Amino acid sequence: MNQTLETMLQHKSDRSYTSQPVGEAQLDLIVRAAYQGPTSINSQQVSLVVVRDPARRARLAEIAGGQPWVAQAPVFICVVVDLHKTAQGLKSRGVEQQTHLSVEGLVAGVLDAGIALGNLMTAAHSLGLGVVPIGGIRRDPLAVAELLKLPKLCFPVNGVCIGHVDKPALAKPRLAISTFRHDEAYSSAGLDAAIAAYDAELMAFWQAQGRANGQPWSESVAGAYKQVYYTQVKEAVIRQGFTLER
Amino acid sequence: MNQTLETMLQHKSDRSYTSQPVGEAQLDLIVRAAYQGPTSINSQQVSLVVVRDPARRARLAEIAGGQPWVAQAPVFICVVVDLHKTAQGLKSRGVEQQTHLSVEGLVAGVLDAGIALGNLMTAAHSLGLGVVPIGGIRRDPLAVAELLKLPKLCFPVNGVCIGHVDKPALAKPRLAISTFRHDEAYSSAGLDAAIAAYDAELMAFWQAQGRANGQPWSESVAGAYKQVYYTQVKEAVIRQGFTLER
Repeated sequence: MNQTLETMLQHKSDRSYTSQPVGEAQLDLIVRAAYQGPTSINSQQVSLVVVRDPARRARLAEIAGGQPWVAQAPVFICVVVDLHKTAQGLKSRGVEQQTHLSVEGLVAGVLDAGIALGNLMTAAHSLGLGVVPIGGIRRDPLAVAELLKLPKLCFPVNGVCIGHVDKPALAKPRLAISTFRHDEAYSSAGLDAAIAAYDAELMAFWQAQGRANGQPWSESVAGAYKQVYYTQVKEAVIRQGFTLER
Repeated sequence: MNQTLETMLQHKSDRSYTSQPVGEAQLDLIVRAAYQGPTSINSQQVSLVVVRDPARRARLAEIAGGQPWVAQAPVFICVVVDLHKTAQGLKSRGVEQQTHLSVEGLVAGVLDAGIALGNLMTAAHSLGLGVVPIGGIRRDPLAVAELLKLPKLCFPVNGVCIGHVDKPALAKPRLAISTFRHDEAYSSAGLDAAIAAYDAELMAFWQAQGRANGQPWSESVAGAYKQVYYTQVKEAVIRQGFTLER
């Protein structure tokens, strides 16, 4: 065990922040942790937009479906899949980029964005700051692209609030690790029982916290995934130039 | 600065491993670091397949286009976008899952997989082990799915080799951080100059290492991205049930 593992093993999302700013030196370290994350074929196909401006954060909170912590936390970092930079690299060689026309192009970019997002969160936690990832910006990615002046071939895939925690959250329990780790080959054995046990465990967790509207996992996931969760993503990725044609 | 930040700031990919095994206690900590990563709407839509079996690693090395380090490193972890578990959760409520029919469903899953992949790498580094992420399994995702017995709604998006490093690699320089961090809004100002400067810096890096076949960044990215990089991804995601229809 070490400090780094402890930091990741204690991950939780916080949604309550004080007004204390995040220092520029801390922010620089957090950004550098993401910058040093690996990317597919050394493409460096990720960018960050760091938002401190309160009006812009208020607008992002609104786009994200009314998430007050986006306006409250002093820093919001938008994580962008960026094939504009690579396209410019190709252009400098007189070559036209094709990979953004493919599902592979989007998948590779989103994966690299996920690595960067994870590093941002781990780095912030290691400095004693709180975080909450915000997928809600995918409710209206084109509005985010406009607000942050993203060029074509850039897609705002997620964001993260960073700040000093006011009322700390508790880490939620998870589905049994046997449903996460599979050795040599995937196995669904025990999945249904693990889901039932987790539903009960999560309800006990909500009750212990006095949270009356807490749902079992299967119910909350059903509420989200019985439809397409964010409906504008396909149109937005295509409009940004990721055509999914190939 | 702290140990966690140092670990991430020193990231590099190693492609040379000794035969020394990775202990089960270490592997357990590495897996748990990924397990504790956040997921969209607490969906827990990621799974890992841990591969130690040499024959299976040899097959994965082959699928990945002949990457000997996949066969050499004692552990390979395949990172899987897993909407099978959520679908089973919905089923337990008598509800049918829809989100996997959408681009959003794939994007959210791949992003969460990226967070898990980043955590695996940071955790392994913190224990003094080396890693190299393997996007090459997307050369033939259906072969990987068959080898690892993945059910429908599971997509093998990446993998990572973990082991004790034999001949350590050097971290490559990167494009200027000004092309990565944008404040308040995205800016392309200075991008072309940054690419030209980076091309020169990377060539100097290759020359200092005596690597005769090293290319400037724009040339290597052009070689990869002037076509669709992995051509079978679209068919494979659709065959696994992520139809991209909505």
